[in-house]
Amino acid sequence: MNADSAFQEIARTVQVLAFDTFGTVVDWHGSIVREMQQHHPRVDADAFARAWRAGYQPAMARVMSGAQGWTLIDALHRQILDEILPRFGLAHLGEEERVHLNRVWHRLSPWPDCVAGLTRLKRRYTITTLSNGNIGLLTHMAKRAGLPWDCILSAEVFRAYKPDPATYLGVARVFELPPQQVMLVAAHHDDLAGARACGLRTAYIERPLEFGAGHAKDVSPRPGNDLHARDLLDLADQLGA
Amino acid sequence: MNADSAFQEIARTVQVLAFDTFGTVVDWHGSIVREMQQHHPRVDADAFARAWRAGYQPAMARVMSGAQGWTLIDALHRQILDEILPRFGLAHLGEEERVHLNRVWHRLSPWPDCVAGLTRLKRRYTITTLSNGNIGLLTHMAKRAGLPWDCILSAEVFRAYKPDPATYLGVARVFELPPQQVMLVAAHHDDLAGARACGLRTAYIERPLEFGAGHAKDVSPRPGNDLHARDLLDLADQLGA
Repeated sequence: MNADSAFQEIARTVQVLAFDTFGTVVDWHGSIVREMQQHHPRVDADAFARAWRAGYQPAMARVMSGAQGWTLIDALHRQILDEILPRFGLAHLGEEERVHLNRVWHRLSPWPDCVAGLTRLKRRYTITTLSNGNIGLLTHMAKRAGLPWDCILSAEVFRAYKPDPATYLGVARVFELPPQQVMLVAAHHDDLAGARACGLRTAYIERPLEFGAGHAKDVSPRPGNDLHARDLLDLADQLGA
Repeated sequence: MNADSAFQEIARTVQVLAFDTFGTVVDWHGSIVREMQQHHPRVDADAFARAWRAGYQPAMARVMSGAQGWTLIDALHRQILDEILPRFGLAHLGEEERVHLNRVWHRLSPWPDCVAGLTRLKRRYTITTLSNGNIGLLTHMAKRAGLPWDCILSAEVFRAYKPDPATYLGVARVFELPPQQVMLVAAHHDDLAGARACGLRTAYIERPLEFGAGHAKDVSPRPGNDLHARDLLDLADQLGA
């Protein structure tokens, strides 16, 4: 099969596109940096955003290992926030300020291509989130940013965090499809590898500035993914949407 | 508090509107009748639609009593379909035809006021389904009908069928709200009573033709509901949206 017909075969068979959100659809680093610069201008906003995000994988790992019971991302984000605030000279923040700051994850802004790209992709495919974020967070984010999801799927629905197979296979089950008719779209190779191991199709999205301009990410193509796209508009081009 | 300020208090405090779907948002009777008249013109389509729907509550009751393990509505609809087909002279339908016919529940048409009404309500409130239908069914229905949900919540998420409290309280929990900031919108008094018992606000929607023109429903107001609306446009008027 040549490259063109491989594309066509993917475009013809895939029914559902499931999107990772943090980093892939929304710019967590830039959004947190902007809020911190506005409300806490003395803090190193770049280091703060990265420290908060760095606690994310270990927190989910604690839950998935059973060391901590099932906990939603809102609560994990809050645990990490409480841990890092003293390091950034913000130990004095009161409960109300912490609640508000923690909600920044509901207020993340999309990358500039996302609303237009998703709107095109939605015409031809069912588009859903498949995020470790909780349903409330993802719904608030979508409403604020105008992300036109057909459906909000989350670790909260499957009670498991990616890359647990229950999440990827859960999307296929919800739509009664074989895994190869579902494609995971993500900016993270470990997430894509988890999906691929379950038989899903995969599309890598370049987000070189996910960690900020000072920490550019290697976004060169890696073997294994069905598609490699610059952004969601490029993905729509490739998928004929 | 007079009637006006009671309305204003509801409009100010309610954040999330959760909608029953079958009968409230989509016309299951009319949609099934139209498909049957087209594909099986000799069948009494009205009686067929009502017989299929009549199996619905008993099927969910079997699941909730534990007599049958957790089963999605798609599979319950199929069980009922297989039971009633012989009664309507359709025992000869093959597997492919049964699968297609069962999917009619994914293809139900909205009442004429719904897309415009939901679009208005969405500007001011978070609008979600709270249906016993499964997520895939509700997503396909919304995509086909253009229902602009912010979120798809279903018995499938809570692994319980309405009127189990886990469903109503589940919506409040997903959005981290006290129950009185969530309103159930439904055309069925038993559903609204279940929500009210959990502390949710309730809005009754008149759907006099839910069971077809030959079986008009009593839609006169009953005490207990916060709002009583003719349709979703009337609800939007009452809620200031």
